[in-house]
Amino acid sequence: VVGGGVIGSSIAYHMAKNKMKVLLLEKGRLAGQASGAAAGMLAAQAETDGKGPLYQLAKESRAMFPRIAEELKELSGIDIGWVSGGIYKLALTAEEAEALRQSAAFQLERGDRAEWLERQELLSRLPALSETVCGGLFLPEDGQVSAPHLSLAFAKAAAALGAEVREFVEIDEILCEHSRVIGVAAGGQPIYSGTVVVACGAWSSRVLSSAGIELAAYPVKGECFSVVTHKALLETTVFTDSCYAVPKAGGRLLIGATMEHGTFDRAVTAGGIAALLARAQALIPGIARAEWEQAWSGLRPQTPDGLPYLGSHPQLDGLLVATGHFRNGILLSPITGRLIAELAAGGEAAELDPFRPGRPLTLRKEGGTIASYH
Amino acid sequence: VVGGGVIGSSIAYHMAKNKMKVLLLEKGRLAGQASGAAAGMLAAQAETDGKGPLYQLAKESRAMFPRIAEELKELSGIDIGWVSGGIYKLALTAEEAEALRQSAAFQLERGDRAEWLERQELLSRLPALSETVCGGLFLPEDGQVSAPHLSLAFAKAAAALGAEVREFVEIDEILCEHSRVIGVAAGGQPIYSGTVVVACGAWSSRVLSSAGIELAAYPVKGECFSVVTHKALLETTVFTDSCYAVPKAGGRLLIGATMEHGTFDRAVTAGGIAALLARAQALIPGIARAEWEQAWSGLRPQTPDGLPYLGSHPQLDGLLVATGHFRNGILLSPITGRLIAELAAGGEAAELDPFRPGRPLTLRKEGGTIASYH
Amino acid sequence: VVGGGVIGSSIAYHMAKNKMKVLLLEKGRLAGQASGAAAGMLAAQAETDGKGPLYQLAKESRAMFPRIAEELKELSGIDIGWVSGGIYKLALTAEEAEALRQSAAFQLERGDRAEWLERQELLSRLPALSETVCGGLFLPEDGQVSAPHLSLAFAKAAAALGAEVREFVEIDEILCEHSRVIGVAAGGQPIYSGTVVVACGAWSSRVLSSAGIELAAYPVKGECFSVVTHKALLETTVFTDSCYAVPKAGGRLLIGATMEHGTFDRAVTAGGIAALLARAQALIPGIARAEWEQAWSGLRPQTPDGLPYLGSHPQLDGLLVATGHFRNGILLSPITGRLIAELAAGGEAAELDPFRPGRPLTLRKEGGTIASYH
Amino acid sequence: VVGGGVIGSSIAYHMAKNKMKVLLLEKGRLAGQASGAAAGMLAAQAETDGKGPLYQLAKESRAMFPRIAEELKELSGIDIGWVSGGIYKLALTAEEAEALRQSAAFQLERGDRAEWLERQELLSRLPALSETVCGGLFLPEDGQVSAPHLSLAFAKAAAALGAEVREFVEIDEILCEHSRVIGVAAGGQPIYSGTVVVACGAWSSRVLSSAGIELAAYPVKGECFSVVTHKALLETTVFTDSCYAVPKAGGRLLIGATMEHGTFDRAVTAGGIAALLARAQALIPGIARAEWEQAWSGLRPQTPDGLPYLGSHPQLDGLLVATGHFRNGILLSPITGRLIAELAAGGEAAELDPFRPGRPLTLRKEGGTIASYH
Repeated sequence: VVGGGVIGSSIAYHMAKNKMKVLLLEKGRLAGQASGAAAGMLAAQAETDGKGPLYQLAKESRAMFPRIAEELKELSGIDIGWVSGGIYKLALTAEEAEALRQSAAFQLERGDRAEWLERQELLSRLPALSETVCGGLFLPEDGQVSAPHLSLAFAKAAAALGAEVREFVEIDEILCEHSRVIGVAAGGQPIYSGTVVVACGAWSSRVLSSAGIELAAYPVKGECFSVVTHKALLETTVFTDSCYAVPKAGGRLLIGATMEHGTFDRAVTAGGIAALLARAQALIPGIARAEWEQAWSGLRPQTPDGLPYLGSHPQLDGLLVATGHFRNGILLSPITGRLIAELAAGGEAAELDPFRPGRPLTLRKEGGTIASYH
Repeated sequence: VVGGGVIGSSIAYHMAKNKMKVLLLEKGRLAGQASGAAAGMLAAQAETDGKGPLYQLAKESRAMFPRIAEELKELSGIDIGWVSGGIYKLALTAEEAEALRQSAAFQLERGDRAEWLERQELLSRLPALSETVCGGLFLPEDGQVSAPHLSLAFAKAAAALGAEVREFVEIDEILCEHSRVIGVAAGGQPIYSGTVVVACGAWSSRVLSSAGIELAAYPVKGECFSVVTHKALLETTVFTDSCYAVPKAGGRLLIGATMEHGTFDRAVTAGGIAALLARAQALIPGIARAEWEQAWSGLRPQTPDGLPYLGSHPQLDGLLVATGHFRNGILLSPITGRLIAELAAGGEAAELDPFRPGRPLTLRKEGGTIASYH
Repeated sequence: VVGGGVIGSSIAYHMAKNKMKVLLLEKGRLAGQASGAAAGMLAAQAETDGKGPLYQLAKESRAMFPRIAEELKELSGIDIGWVSGGIYKLALTAEEAEALRQSAAFQLERGDRAEWLERQELLSRLPALSETVCGGLFLPEDGQVSAPHLSLAFAKAAAALGAEVREFVEIDEILCEHSRVIGVAAGGQPIYSGTVVVACGAWSSRVLSSAGIELAAYPVKGECFSVVTHKALLETTVFTDSCYAVPKAGGRLLIGATMEHGTFDRAVTAGGIAALLARAQALIPGIARAEWEQAWSGLRPQTPDGLPYLGSHPQLDGLLVATGHFRNGILLSPITGRLIAELAAGGEAAELDPFRPGRPLTLRKEGGTIASYH
Repeated sequence: VVGGGVIGSSIAYHMAKNKMKVLLLEKGRLAGQASGAAAGMLAAQAETDGKGPLYQLAKESRAMFPRIAEELKELSGIDIGWVSGGIYKLALTAEEAEALRQSAAFQLERGDRAEWLERQELLSRLPALSETVCGGLFLPEDGQVSAPHLSLAFAKAAAALGAEVREFVEIDEILCEHSRVIGVAAGGQPIYSGTVVVACGAWSSRVLSSAGIELAAYPVKGECFSVVTHKALLETTVFTDSCYAVPKAGGRLLIGATMEHGTFDRAVTAGGIAALLARAQALIPGIARAEWEQAWSGLRPQTPDGLPYLGSHPQLDGLLVATGHFRNGILLSPITGRLIAELAAGGEAAELDPFRPGRPLTLRKEGGTIASYH
């Protein structure tokens, strides 16, 4: 398994659980990139509006967390901070309110829980919110975890089950023989294996290109910051189109995230932080008096059609790909790990069909346009 | 409550739980001194050999942790890392082995669990140990927590229950009227309260002296370091006279601790770390290949007779003292918090009698001598 | 000397240079408070407009820096980052422009250098500035240093000259005999000395109160942040009433500072940073694309009349006071050190008369009002 | 220029100084690897014994530092901490003493300065040394700089002169056309340039392999730590075969370095630090009471014959290589930068002939064996 983020670590964990011999390789530090930077929302409904092929997968993955939390605590000692308190998706304008009301109706019809709250009801539940909010949707089944803890816990639990974990190992190339993977080369040395899983997030295209494989995936930088108070400002995650606030243990409140497409530059910009601070204070005025903690960033792996690549690569036997999770890597890590581990063991995973790496790509709608990409 | 370490925070938490109005004042950062530096062993038997007045208190406190862990997680979101896997107390020489065997017999007679293990049995349970160990005692009821998490969790849970928590507030003096406490002054401003609890660890004597009260308590510096591996070197804490190793979440192993009496200087010395590294490698050879993480120190509050001061001060009505816990502050924090909160509410706590602040002090035996101190 | 900030360290350095036996005591870390947090402007003219008793002292102190920089580098190896490139004091409104033009005229008459620059000239010299500036004053003799480096360099140079430097030593009380200082007590132990210098910044009142001395001095919190670019955004410090930007080595740009009166709470607030970021971006738009580095704060010691306390205290022989430097501590540290060291050696310092600790205090003008304080 | 360490940054600086258009690309952070981890010794004589082709180059480079220090301070504001106080190369056994005496004789004959000091003379000059040393060589022309400051200063000075500097840019491949370099690809985008300089230290082989070029270079990990005292323990660098101690500004003392061949794993090991601490305390007993600061590591690029690769690569026109400096990267950075910049401008550099990338390699003597490698 190449990539020590939450996806690679979950795959390694599930493979080790299935008694497979696993080697997890990370070019830098475990959870050192997007996985360690994520806010950890389990926003199956908040992110997808309950629509599209991603939603079923996300819902199934969300349901795996209670059990995963227990297993990982047992094996690694790490508490992943799983909280199931729901997410409030807020409307800041009348248009957004109307859209959320329609979304609620759609989700209710489908049998998913989603509760529309008028402004007053919302403010009585979340007194920290600004009075300018126009209402919101309560999605009681969404939740959150601590992303860095989850990522490390997967890797350490994999190690506890016998997987070998190595940091600071950068892949030179994927080794092939007659359109079949036979291993990887790293530091000038070959490491042989009949199965290679590429789970390198925004760096996956780069790793795959060494085997002559093109995969359209690119980084989207997100900048975040956190504040802290002794008494928590919020008990439950709030989510808007322009920013979200996720309450963490001990009164921390994590605010995210900006979006910058196509750069590998992880530097946090002063302008990004200024914009995010302004939005966050407009939403939750008490943030102004909270203690500033720190700012950081991560590079989320995005794809042209907005769906991850999950499954066997059609060009090379033995090559599995799991990347492109964009803002849903934490949420999708349990199901990704389980299904990819099954494929690695020679099994099938029909539910991954919409996400297969070789699919024709339709450019994701943004601002009303649809364009063919691949 | 003056002092935002584990003791002051536990008292504030228990008072807030009893619906008292609480103000917790900390001169620097919450858990910024000894509480944040501690290894977190719950070594009721390992530290006391099951003897002395401290043991009953320690045993009772140890039994409170499962419930405390749940309450604090619920209120603060913080996982205190409670693990109940026991502690191995090791003998490095034949004399130590004989002493431990006798200790085991004594504890068993008393009805406490303590299991003597010969060298081979010990090595089969703890393969990471050096072959030079001479056997050891397994104390299955001892355990451990994460000390910084416990301290912060008490303070944040107190805040969640309505206590006010302020950092960076240094007490100028304790305000009195006719041998009765009426509050404290801080930053030139009076803060009135009928009850003042001094829980300032090694700084308690200094705070009390502003009210003309002498309390014999002094700091003992302890230096520690930690290493980390992907697969944990140890599953269970091991304890010797010269050093201990406490396994933490995610493969961290915390090694402690040197002892230097009477200094407030928190600087970690290269010589202290060198000595501790040598001892730790002799005990657990695999530490040599583990990753170095960091070194730090804390100032444990010690008293002449080795017992903490817990209870009402005889000179001033309304003044409660809770300090001098030395290496047992984490372990004793739940019971200290509960009993001091009861006293603050006007209750009684007979079991604190051996620890009352005004007691005559007998100098703790060290190297065979006993001397009267106070 | 009590206080290991820039003032105490400069005094210790000048005393050691005069071959006096010196002990420098610091309760925490050298340069751990305001001195380590300061921006390091040598704004003799920018801060004073060339008026008042402080100006002569500031001017004299500013002139000492070239020599001090050399001495400290020689003795401690530390480069204090002295730069003499001047300061631009900017007008953001027509009123401010008019005031600055008058200030320039006044300073020129007095023989001090001060050059008024119209908007276009200013923008051609400082292309990073926003086009909304209304002109500014160039004060070519002001400059800057690195405040943390200067503070540490004074202390380390003092140590090189034989002074003893101790961190983590908190003063219990100043010891007196018949209205004469005989030393201090720290950690319960007396330390005898015929001269005690109190240079504890915002904590000085607290230290002096142990000797029954009241000194009206209080903290004013300032929050700052820094950004970094490869090519420097600015070559020269710019200064406005609402914020300043000081270019440091390696493309860092340090932005300061908020003001909050009367709190010892060092926590940086999200609202403070948001306000400062907004002001800084309005002044220097390129900051938006610069890399965010970090935010911090310091507690500047202020006095009712805005002048520092410098000299022998009238109530106690042997007691010297040096505090209350507000935003001018870095600038005034060389002259303060030299003159206090002369007093400590039994000399005279007539120029300190306006700053003597026992003076009657007139409340500093703020918004047009003057009020008697003491 | 690919590689933002001291070598790449010096080349970029010298090219920018020659008015060339330069783009400096770094995959992570400037000075983030070996250059930021180095002790900064300018040990032209101490490392080479005044012999071999490296010595002439090192001597010439060492002579460039006074001027470089001034230029970089002027352009970047960064003080590189250049100190010319010499290096003491110590003998710990009679055999080493004899070897050093012979080395001194050889160097004196050659006209280089080298002074043999008997034990007593040495201890009177360096009272911090252990009495077990057997004498030593004083090499008055060697010296030291601060390695991270030097590296950053080169890059920032290059930026000040117009070079473009980009961090977080990883090279996908070197682009070629008919055995001529035409640029590089990074992040999927081509960047065209007639000259590409590979200065990626231990990662250079990896970068070159994308152009089908094999270069035998591999990492050698070195672990270090630092301690700090108020009064410096040492004024001058001391150097032995097993460890060295380099005094830095402000009383820091930097101790290096272990050696581990062939790993890219930067993790600092507890065993490495323990061994280094033991050696350092044996040499300078006062280290035991000094304050522990931190431990870190770096990966030095080594070559089979122990000589760096400097110059045009014979296989590809327009490709320049500068790597393999092992423990001499800091020392050799000025001359490397100057000569490679000259080559890049179409000039000649005959003195680089022994270091040309295509040379036949003779395995460096270790323990008496010589073996042919390439």
